[in-house]
Amino acid sequence: MANQDKTTNRQQDILPEPTLRRLPWYLAYLTTLHAQNVEYVSTTRIAEDLKVAPSQIAKDLSFLGLRGKTRIGYSVDELEDTLRRFLGFAQRHNAVMLGVGSLGAALMADSGLQRYGLNIVAGIDINKGIIGTQINGVPVYSPSALSELVGKLKVTIGIIAVPVECAQDVADGLVEAGIKAIWNFTPTRIAVPDGVVITNTSIYSHLAVMYNRLSNLGQ
Amino acid sequence: MANQDKTTNRQQDILPEPTLRRLPWYLAYLTTLHAQNVEYVSTTRIAEDLKVAPSQIAKDLSFLGLRGKTRIGYSVDELEDTLRRFLGFAQRHNAVMLGVGSLGAALMADSGLQRYGLNIVAGIDINKGIIGTQINGVPVYSPSALSELVGKLKVTIGIIAVPVECAQDVADGLVEAGIKAIWNFTPTRIAVPDGVVITNTSIYSHLAVMYNRLSNLGQ
Repeated sequence: MANQDKTTNRQQDILPEPTLRRLPWYLAYLTTLHAQNVEYVSTTRIAEDLKVAPSQIAKDLSFLGLRGKTRIGYSVDELEDTLRRFLGFAQRHNAVMLGVGSLGAALMADSGLQRYGLNIVAGIDINKGIIGTQINGVPVYSPSALSELVGKLKVTIGIIAVPVECAQDVADGLVEAGIKAIWNFTPTRIAVPDGVVITNTSIYSHLAVMYNRLSNLGQ
Repeated sequence: MANQDKTTNRQQDILPEPTLRRLPWYLAYLTTLHAQNVEYVSTTRIAEDLKVAPSQIAKDLSFLGLRGKTRIGYSVDELEDTLRRFLGFAQRHNAVMLGVGSLGAALMADSGLQRYGLNIVAGIDINKGIIGTQINGVPVYSPSALSELVGKLKVTIGIIAVPVECAQDVADGLVEAGIKAIWNFTPTRIAVPDGVVITNTSIYSHLAVMYNRLSNLGQ
């Protein structure tokens, strides 16, 4: 009985994932309003512009502890700022990039990730030709440096962009080194122990979905 | 009644999206087996390795018109090749990159996309400093060149990596130029008319989900 209560509480504390996926849309929308010098926005207007039910928006935003003022709505600046903080974009999260090939190097070169709080502090690769070089000012090391880097630079996130056949081994090495979250850019599934976060961004799977829908258009 | 039958048929023709999202995993897995010189693989082994129910795998692969042989299973080479073709990765799909900033340029530099059939033939940007230059051998043009490029180079896909406040305008321009599919890398929602495919890859939204799970770990 005590256990059951604990489970229930824990689930209530955790934000529902659909809400969490909508919040960055709201933030993007507010950034647009900000650029247009809009000062206040109502739930009704957000709902119309984003085609989300007003009740859903009010519920989603209630997780932030914010409420719109009657008739005026939300302050765009305040809501944008609160969302950015709430989503963790205002903090710095240190990460290492495993696999500095084409995609890995591309992600290291994307300053957008930095604006969203991701601070890639090191690249790791087995290619001797790039070990010791820098990508976008970030040094590339050999895999043997991983454990020390994680401890010394307070790295919590490992990003995996290695060839698919090495992905699980690399993930195991990250877990052993004490990484708390893995962001997997390979198209494979990776197994991690409980207590380690895994987030999949399967760019190439999205391509397959797009190609399939494209070919269905012609039918 | 006739209409109802038609709808039913159409839905049967279209591959279920969960299946479509699993197929690239199977392909990635087969690539790994291939690298290990494995010649045949059974549904049972795929199921164990990928932690997917055997019946699900058999159902998913039945969409390819392939059936494993009793006791031997599937030929790894044949299944890999069939999956690659089925997913559209063996064809070339011409695309333009809208917004050659940090993320756009990074994606243009990712040769992995090319291996999965995406052929970025041009970049488009408003920045006069990069118009006329090349990224990874691909020329960058001004927005005024879009319509002509789409027609001349048989471009079907537009990739959007512009600042969020310009995303909808850029999408409207792509639709007007005759693009059939939009791959949206911005964190905003984009509205497109019926008959145009929209695929969202919200990298930064995935970051928010990862940060949130990371902060829940500590609780």
